[in-house]
Amino acid sequence: MIARSFLIGVAAIAMSPLTLPMAAQAAADDAHPVLMNAGKLSALGANAQAYPLFGEELARVRKSVDAAMKAGISVPVPKDAGGGASHEQHKRNYTALYGAGQLYRITGERRYADFARDMLLAYAKLYPTLGPHPAASNQAAGRLFWQSLNDSVWLVYAVQGYDAVRDALTPQERQTIDDNVFRKTAQFLSTGSPKVFDRIHNHATWANAGVGMTGYVLRDPDLVEKALKGLDKSGKSGFLRQLDLLFSPDGYYAEGPYYQRYALQPFVIFAAAIEANEPQRRIFAYRDGIVPKAIRTTIQLTYDGYFFPLNDAMPDKSLRTEELYQAVAIGYGVTHDPALLSIAQWQKRTVLTPQGLEVARDVAAGKARPFPFASMLLRDGPDGDKGGLAILRAGPGDKDQVLVAKNTAQGMGHGHFDKLNWLLYDNGQAIVTDYGAARFLNIEAKDGGRYLPENESWAKQTVAHNTLVVNETSHFGGDAKLAETLAPRQLHFSGEGPTRASIAEMDGAYPGVTFRRALVQLDIKGLKSPLMVDLLKVKGGKPARYDLPLHFAGHIIDTGFPLQSNVTTRPLLGKADGYQHLWVDATGKPGADNGVLTWIQDGRFYSYRIATPGVTMILGESGASDPRFNLRREPFVIQRLDGATDAAFVSLLEPHGRYDASAETTTGSESAVRGFTHARQGDLDVVTLTLRDGRRVMLVLADDTDPARSHSLQVGGKAQSWKGPVGRFDGEKAK
Amino acid sequence: MIARSFLIGVAAIAMSPLTLPMAAQAAADDAHPVLMNAGKLSALGANAQAYPLFGEELARVRKSVDAAMKAGISVPVPKDAGGGASHEQHKRNYTALYGAGQLYRITGERRYADFARDMLLAYAKLYPTLGPHPAASNQAAGRLFWQSLNDSVWLVYAVQGYDAVRDALTPQERQTIDDNVFRKTAQFLSTGSPKVFDRIHNHATWANAGVGMTGYVLRDPDLVEKALKGLDKSGKSGFLRQLDLLFSPDGYYAEGPYYQRYALQPFVIFAAAIEANEPQRRIFAYRDGIVPKAIRTTIQLTYDGYFFPLNDAMPDKSLRTEELYQAVAIGYGVTHDPALLSIAQWQKRTVLTPQGLEVARDVAAGKARPFPFASMLLRDGPDGDKGGLAILRAGPGDKDQVLVAKNTAQGMGHGHFDKLNWLLYDNGQAIVTDYGAARFLNIEAKDGGRYLPENESWAKQTVAHNTLVVNETSHFGGDAKLAETLAPRQLHFSGEGPTRASIAEMDGAYPGVTFRRALVQLDIKGLKSPLMVDLLKVKGGKPARYDLPLHFAGHIIDTGFPLQSNVTTRPLLGKADGYQHLWVDATGKPGADNGVLTWIQDGRFYSYRIATPGVTMILGESGASDPRFNLRREPFVIQRLDGATDAAFVSLLEPHGRYDASAETTTGSESAVRGFTHARQGDLDVVTLTLRDGRRVMLVLADDTDPARSHSLQVGGKAQSWKGPVGRFDGEKAK
Repeated sequence: MIARSFLIGVAAIAMSPLTLPMAAQAAADDAHPVLMNAGKLSALGANAQAYPLFGEELARVRKSVDAAMKAGISVPVPKDAGGGASHEQHKRNYTALYGAGQLYRITGERRYADFARDMLLAYAKLYPTLGPHPAASNQAAGRLFWQSLNDSVWLVYAVQGYDAVRDALTPQERQTIDDNVFRKTAQFLSTGSPKVFDRIHNHATWANAGVGMTGYVLRDPDLVEKALKGLDKSGKSGFLRQLDLLFSPDGYYAEGPYYQRYALQPFVIFAAAIEANEPQRRIFAYRDGIVPKAIRTTIQLTYDGYFFPLNDAMPDKSLRTEELYQAVAIGYGVTHDPALLSIAQWQKRTVLTPQGLEVARDVAAGKARPFPFASMLLRDGPDGDKGGLAILRAGPGDKDQVLVAKNTAQGMGHGHFDKLNWLLYDNGQAIVTDYGAARFLNIEAKDGGRYLPENESWAKQTVAHNTLVVNETSHFGGDAKLAETLAPRQLHFSGEGPTRASIAEMDGAYPGVTFRRALVQLDIKGLKSPLMVDLLKVKGGKPARYDLPLHFAGHIIDTGFPLQSNVTTRPLLGKADGYQHLWVDATGKPGADNGVLTWIQDGRFYSYRIATPGVTMILGESGASDPRFNLRREPFVIQRLDGATDAAFVSLLEPHGRYDASAETTTGSESAVRGFTHARQGDLDVVTLTLRDGRRVMLVLADDTDPARSHSLQVGGKAQSWKGPVGRFDGEKAK
Repeated sequence: MIARSFLIGVAAIAMSPLTLPMAAQAAADDAHPVLMNAGKLSALGANAQAYPLFGEELARVRKSVDAAMKAGISVPVPKDAGGGASHEQHKRNYTALYGAGQLYRITGERRYADFARDMLLAYAKLYPTLGPHPAASNQAAGRLFWQSLNDSVWLVYAVQGYDAVRDALTPQERQTIDDNVFRKTAQFLSTGSPKVFDRIHNHATWANAGVGMTGYVLRDPDLVEKALKGLDKSGKSGFLRQLDLLFSPDGYYAEGPYYQRYALQPFVIFAAAIEANEPQRRIFAYRDGIVPKAIRTTIQLTYDGYFFPLNDAMPDKSLRTEELYQAVAIGYGVTHDPALLSIAQWQKRTVLTPQGLEVARDVAAGKARPFPFASMLLRDGPDGDKGGLAILRAGPGDKDQVLVAKNTAQGMGHGHFDKLNWLLYDNGQAIVTDYGAARFLNIEAKDGGRYLPENESWAKQTVAHNTLVVNETSHFGGDAKLAETLAPRQLHFSGEGPTRASIAEMDGAYPGVTFRRALVQLDIKGLKSPLMVDLLKVKGGKPARYDLPLHFAGHIIDTGFPLQSNVTTRPLLGKADGYQHLWVDATGKPGADNGVLTWIQDGRFYSYRIATPGVTMILGESGASDPRFNLRREPFVIQRLDGATDAAFVSLLEPHGRYDASAETTTGSESAVRGFTHARQGDLDVVTLTLRDGRRVMLVLADDTDPARSHSLQVGGKAQSWKGPVGRFDGEKAK
């Protein structure tokens, strides 16, 4: 059977002109590495040290693989679920195989090839004896691991290690490992697991990548073809189809930034393998260059290197991850964009591949240029019509102020119920925050590191976010399937100039309720940081309770309005949909001109000023109803309107001043804003800021968001006119 | 009158052989700078740039003084209290005078001398017209400022600036400024303010320093003599007496680390001026070298550069402050200790004096050596018999683990009621914490930056600290005067070897109650961080409620014992003495072997394990009864014993494991300790740790703390004997 497989492979090659170069190489040199340009590494020797990033990685991997070699080969019979001993050993093994292969190519030291060979020969004995994993649960069962996803990851790494040492093995050793390890694993993960393999889902991407790369290494174009186009080779599934469907035209991944980072790895690694073997496929140009675009977009989804923690996400996840080391190196190999080098510098790491070597060499040569972080609208959905993520940046630096408007679609099972939510980063800090996921990754005592019950009861609920809640219930009633069917509409986006804006609208998050939100980042002369205007308008059809929470990071300094405080017992805000997790510290009813709350974070002040008539302000802290201390405790403020049918929440967030602990100086602790008003004029919303120095800034938002439509308004006795939904008029000092 | 003053000065010189060198110089060159070796700076010119620390400071000061020159001279009639416009302007003026003087010496640019001259001539017009400050409150009134303390600080800076430019002025200008500014100010602050000037207090140190330095500049030895020995020149007050009384023999300042930093500046600056003018006084050798000792001790009072926040203290205060820039430079000028250079490197700053130049030059020459942070007992009190601060360090690095036992005296008005309190730093973080002061320094909206009411009601109270509270009342009933009369006794200190310990005892914090605390830092082979054993024994004479709080930084991961949780309303723990500021989240009663609470901080786990029989554990958070959001909210756990007369609180704190967010790996999240017991054998307390690998560590603490006394004990069937109060026996794996 093994021989036949091979023959079928050769026949397939003969039939496909596209795969001829590979066939030619296979004939000439049957065991040479095909997944990378090994010649670049073989030529390296001691020169690796000339490029510090590469030299350090070489030392790191050598230390790790040497330790594995010293520990001895252990290929245990699969037994444990995630985190258990056999699970962890097989994970360590694929890392060691991958590392040993790289070390053999770079150093030429035979012992690394021997170690990989011996381990793979042990797998060759074990693998044919395996059936479904004994600890399999409701996930698709693997053989080596409880979930077949882990088997796919194992294959992606192990086959790269094998490819690197294969030409150091005897033909007999090769045949044993080819047949009993890799062909069997690839068969199990493809024809043996059709439901996973042909899904449009990240788990399938890993399976496709592992099987496809195995196809190249075994010189088996049939496996490659299935990996690219699905088991029936129709193209309705497989890797190319996933590139079509899992990314938006702007390279945004449906589940959000945290999972975009995770999902990226099999895409870039398999793409690099395709490019190395079948450059004529022009995989990096596929779909208008979606792979390099996805890499750049992933980086754009960060502030100071940390991913925006939208949907289920750990807030401590940064560009310093294995996925991004690979992605940056592969992206650089394709584009030679010097901006990627500055990301590698931030990461302080690269990978031991020819591309990683290029990164290290060019960083050492001083070729790095700053990565151009920019305002952008990343459309969501395969066709770009399911809303989008609007990113407004005050400058190109990775610590310049960023406003993120989450106008995306639901994002599958890891999505949160937070249509038109927003975040703000300023002065190197998260200021308007997203809780992310309720989970302690890999911490055994917290439910083994899995998503905690509070992820459902708190983190996913609307009130845990900075957007509208109607009648204390979450968007879509918390129904993820319903949520998948509806997405916001991005009505306007302008990312350049001194007035940057996102306007989006959501229909159907609640039956009969439409809400529209304009978030505007305003540069004002003489003020160090831009100010944010937030106009959220809701049409409800019938009276309701409207809550607009703002979760912020910082210590409250002052409120302009009097508070009724719960100082001796602290009640809950509600009973369900996340409200049970909120303690109420105080409430207050601002008057017309004192609706301001000021806090301090990392030496800078933030004043949140509202012009929402009749509103009650609720101040409190998250983390109630949490007997196991699973939640962080973070402050919030809610603007509450009771009994309104249509309403407009009008808010301004102003960063100002600086407290310097070392010099014991404080400047600008008072807001630069004296007045903040909202008025309706015809089909226009007019928001006016009056500064303390008397200057006035008028921001006008039109109902009609047609960019070609002209509007006009009397401003200070003078007719002003403009095109498009956003107008701005800066006035002289008031008399 | 002016001429007469001068004559008296000369007469005094003539009478005192000690001051002859100054007199000689005065005769030869009446206006040359005397407060520093100006020749070193004058020779500098463009070479300043060769020493980056100095060059950067030069650029910084030049920018600041140039801005002040551009703004123009403003010497307003005093009007406002602290923070107000006239107050801030006079503060800016002394900084500008000081900077202009330095710049003139370094650059030779005449415009800096002219600026200083013009400003001082403006002061010469204003000063003679001034009476007591119109905004004076209950503090000693100044002339330029509402408090005379500020006038003293003004004088210290301004006279240094004047000294630097004096030889660039005409004799007429000099005389005008000498007479109408400096002599008048010095008179006001000395003979005009006898109560302040002759106090033993930091405010007097500033006055002494300003007056004494003015004496040198005006060639008036009478002023110098008063500054050194008090108005009556008896030596019962004045600078030298302050050196005798305000520091302990180990260079520890009575009020604690935060105020030690603040107090240091006038001591070191005036000492440097004395040395420059009267080297025969050997001021830096005075009292066994108390000035350089105090500088080194100040640095030892830090972790990762931040001061231990004992007593009233802001936790964000580090070695990066003006006081320490001056102290490090002056200390280096005296000692040339290369360890001070590494502190300057950490500070990234120095000062524009000849000593600062030396620092910058030697840092640039690579002469810096690591500062030798070390375990030490810093005795408190002028005679070293008022308890002390015991610092146990796991290594010489500024981030090696540190245990601080606060066994000091009360520390005057800024002292907290926390006898035998302790702190722990580990892994670069504060782990067992001290709240410090309830205050937002310089933040206008928080009571103008003053101490807040919660400083009395919370921050000073015993329950806000990590020490024993009896019957929910603070030590000494919160009476600061009573507290001043009593201090702990340090019974034992051993800072070296694998078992480092502090034992201290407090008598009279409560009537009839004595408590003794042993804090031991244990190195254990194979464990990355030392473990802390805390044995607190109390003899009360009658049944009482004993609480032992632990305030910690981190997120709770797990408890070994079941909890009764307050999930829907959150009650207060008590009504007064700080208890009203504590929310109760949960309570629990541990059994014999499950008394453990684990939290995580910055990727490391901490298990707090107790062997206190019959204890109730109270888990909660600070920040209740705080309608103005003045307090931070921080977790705590309290061990509570009700109705006990004598009791022993037995606790173990174990750092372990590591969570790496980037690699998504967790190691050692389980404690390495399996068992923790306490037993009494004769006059010995026997604490036994059993590790998970079966090893046993036995720590024995004897009642008799005589270092010469021998003890013996049967350990594992073998008689062991040792000398002194602390014995330790590491056993083999248990069978």
